[in-house]
Amino acid sequence: MWAALAAVGRDPSTGGYRRGGWTPSERAATDWFLDQCAARGLAVESDGIGNLVAWWAPGGFGADGAAVGGSGTSAGVPAVPGVVTGSHLDSVIDGGAFDGPLGVVSALAAVDLLRASGFSSSVPIGVGAFVEEEGSRFGMPCLGSRVAAGVLPASKALALKDRAGVSLADALAEAGTDPAGVGPSPLLARMGTFVELHVEQGRALTAPVGVASSIWPHGRYRFTFTGEANHAGTTLMEDRHDPMLTYAMTALAANKQARLVGARATFGRLAVEPNGTNAVPSQVTAWLDARAGSTEVLESLLEAITRQAVERAGRDGTKVDVVAESVSPVVDFPAGLRDRLVGVLDGAPVLPTGAGHDAGVFSDAGIPTAMLFVRNPTGVSHSPAEHAEMDDCLAGVETLAAVLKDLAQ
Amino acid sequence: MWAALAAVGRDPSTGGYRRGGWTPSERAATDWFLDQCAARGLAVESDGIGNLVAWWAPGGFGADGAAVGGSGTSAGVPAVPGVVTGSHLDSVIDGGAFDGPLGVVSALAAVDLLRASGFSSSVPIGVGAFVEEEGSRFGMPCLGSRVAAGVLPASKALALKDRAGVSLADALAEAGTDPAGVGPSPLLARMGTFVELHVEQGRALTAPVGVASSIWPHGRYRFTFTGEANHAGTTLMEDRHDPMLTYAMTALAANKQARLVGARATFGRLAVEPNGTNAVPSQVTAWLDARAGSTEVLESLLEAITRQAVERAGRDGTKVDVVAESVSPVVDFPAGLRDRLVGVLDGAPVLPTGAGHDAGVFSDAGIPTAMLFVRNPTGVSHSPAEHAEMDDCLAGVETLAAVLKDLAQ
Repeated sequence: MWAALAAVGRDPSTGGYRRGGWTPSERAATDWFLDQCAARGLAVESDGIGNLVAWWAPGGFGADGAAVGGSGTSAGVPAVPGVVTGSHLDSVIDGGAFDGPLGVVSALAAVDLLRASGFSSSVPIGVGAFVEEEGSRFGMPCLGSRVAAGVLPASKALALKDRAGVSLADALAEAGTDPAGVGPSPLLARMGTFVELHVEQGRALTAPVGVASSIWPHGRYRFTFTGEANHAGTTLMEDRHDPMLTYAMTALAANKQARLVGARATFGRLAVEPNGTNAVPSQVTAWLDARAGSTEVLESLLEAITRQAVERAGRDGTKVDVVAESVSPVVDFPAGLRDRLVGVLDGAPVLPTGAGHDAGVFSDAGIPTAMLFVRNPTGVSHSPAEHAEMDDCLAGVETLAAVLKDLAQ
Repeated sequence: MWAALAAVGRDPSTGGYRRGGWTPSERAATDWFLDQCAARGLAVESDGIGNLVAWWAPGGFGADGAAVGGSGTSAGVPAVPGVVTGSHLDSVIDGGAFDGPLGVVSALAAVDLLRASGFSSSVPIGVGAFVEEEGSRFGMPCLGSRVAAGVLPASKALALKDRAGVSLADALAEAGTDPAGVGPSPLLARMGTFVELHVEQGRALTAPVGVASSIWPHGRYRFTFTGEANHAGTTLMEDRHDPMLTYAMTALAANKQARLVGARATFGRLAVEPNGTNAVPSQVTAWLDARAGSTEVLESLLEAITRQAVERAGRDGTKVDVVAESVSPVVDFPAGLRDRLVGVLDGAPVLPTGAGHDAGVFSDAGIPTAMLFVRNPTGVSHSPAEHAEMDDCLAGVETLAAVLKDLAQ
C-alpha cells in the first residue's frame, strides 16, 4: 500500500507532496483509498463534504445486508456506533509522505491483521479518511472534520477561497459534489470511539509508539503591514514608510518570544505588494502560526509579538493590523481512554503535540478520542524529509490492531 | 493628451498602473502614441524589439518624401542624425502616471510648440518611446534600450522569462513582432543627441525644472536563503533551520547599512517556498535593489549586507547565496551638453538621480545625452501617489521646446 501511494501527488523536483483538498492529486489518493476499500469488501460511507468511513463488520453482516449491530442505513453500513480509526490523505504544500497517509494505511493494515486473526465482534470498525485536514488549499485546518462536527457552518466553509480565488463551493461542484449537501455529518453518530494513528512530528518520542495526552492550543493570525509604495532608487531612506522593515522586525521578535516561553511561532507565508524589485512595498501580509502548552502562554505570546510589531510600526511610519483567522483551544484527550491505550501498549510514553489533528475536533465534539504516535527519528515534518522507520511503522500497525481489538470487544 | 492616457492600464482598485511590456495595457498605450504621431503626420520608425521614434522634419520634407538632411531610408525618415527626445510608456507594477509617460507627452507637446512657433531647421527632431524600461515584466530594466545599444545580446534578451514563465521571444511573437529581428538598432545611428525629460523621484529638486548630472550606480542582487522545511507546530525552535529569520535580519541590516552611508537598499520582492502558514519555509528568495553615489560605496554596501547575511545564516543553520542579476555602473552625463542645457534654462539646478533611465544606456553607448527633471513635490514615485503639479509640467514642456530648438539650430 505504501509503495502504491508514494507517487501520488509527489513533485519530482522537490520530492514534496502537493495534495491540496480537491486537487487532482488529492482526488487520485482518494480514488486509491476507495479501491483499497472495495478490494476488502468494505462499504464506504461519504458525508456531504466528502469525509469517508469504510465499515468493516467483524461479526459478519446481517440477513438484510447491513453490518451487525442492527439495520444499517445502507448495505454494509452499521446502525450502531463503532470504533473508527483513520486520518487524512491531503498534504501541506511540499509536505512529506507520512503526515496523514500513515494513519490511513495503518488503519487498513490493522483491519487486515484483525481479519487474518479471525477476530470477531458485534462492534463495527471504521476506517476514515477526512478531507482537507491541513488547510493547505482553503486556509482552514481540519476543514472536513470541523464541518462534520458542526463547528464550522456550511455557509462559512463554502465561501472559503483558495489562493486562485476559487471558492470551496466551486471546488466541490467541479469535483462532482453537491455543495448543498455540506453540513453536520451523520457519520459522527456512528463514531462511538475515534483513534487516530499519526507520525510524531517533533523528536519528542523515543519509543516506537506513544499515546497522546493533549493538543496544544493553536492560532493562525494574519498580520497586515501597510506602508507607502515608493521608488527604491530615489526615495531617501528617511522618507520611506517601508512595511517590509516592520515585518522583518516582527518575524525576529516572534522567534525570540517563542523561545523565551518554550512555545512555537512561525511566519511561513507572505504576500508582498506590489512585489517589484525596484519598488518599496506598499503592503506586506504575513501569517503567524503560534502554539503553546496553554491558552495563557499562547495569548501572552501573541500579545508580546503584536506589541513589538506596533512599536516598530510607529518608528517606520507604517501600520499593522492583526486578525485571528482561526484559534483552536487546547484539547485534553479523555484520561480513561488514554490510560486504556497505555495499558494495551504495556506502558507506552504519553506526550502532548503541537500539531492540530481531526482527532482534536472529534474530541471537542464529544466523541471519546485517542491518538497513537509513531516515532519520528529526526523530528522533521511538513517537509519532503519527513520520515519514520519501517519497523516503527509496523509496530504502529500491530499496536493499532491491538487497540481496535480491545475497544471493539 | 494627459487625460486620454490617464485611464490606460490603471487598476481602478489601487489607482496604480500595470503597464508591463507587451501586456494589453502597455500595447494600448503604444497604440495611443502611434495615433498621436499619425495625427501630427510624423513617420514612425520601429526597430526589431519595438522601440519607436517618430520623426519631425522642422525644415519640411525633400522632393523624395524623405526628411531634410538627405534621403531617408523611407518616407519621412531622415538619413542624418537628429535630436531625439522621449521616454517610455511602460510602468512598474502599481506605478504612477508620470514616470515615463510625462517624457513622451512632453516631447509631443514640445514639438507642437515648436511647430506652432514656425521653427525651421535642417536637423530632424525625433520623439521616442522605448520598450520595457522598468523591467517590471522581464526583470531587466531598460530592456529596449539595452538591446538597441547592443549591450544586451538578443539571444540573452529573448530567453528572459516573465513570472508566468513566458519568454520574451514568445511575448514578442504573440504581439506580432518577429523575434528574429531583435538586435542592435539602426535607430541609434540617427540619434545625434538624446534628451529625456522625466519626473524627478526623490524630493531633491526645488525648482520646477532641473538638469541631471549623473545616474547613480545601481545593482539588483538575488539573495537565496535556504533552510529546511518543517512543521510549524511541532518542531522545536532550536531544531529549526528557518531561512525566514536569516532573511529578516538581512532586510534590517540592508536598511541600516544604506542609512549609514547615505545610499539606498531595498528588499521589495520576495518568493517563499512552500509559503504555507503551518510550515517553516525551506527557501526564501529576496531581491535587493541597491544604489549609491559611487561604485565604491555600492560595492562596500553590498559587501556589508552580504557579510551580515552570511553571519546570521551561520547562526540559523541556513545557507545564503548572492547573485548579481544586473549591475549598472555610474553614468556621468557629458558636461558640455549639460552646461548648454543649464544655459538655456538660465541657471537651473543640477542634480544626480538614483533611478536608472534609457538615457543612461544611450549615454553609455556614446550618444551625447542629457536629462531634464520636473519637480516632484512629495518625492513619491513608483506608486499611485506619484505626482507633479500641472504648472511644473507645463514649464517642463516649454523648457524641453527651448532645449530642442537650441540643439537643432
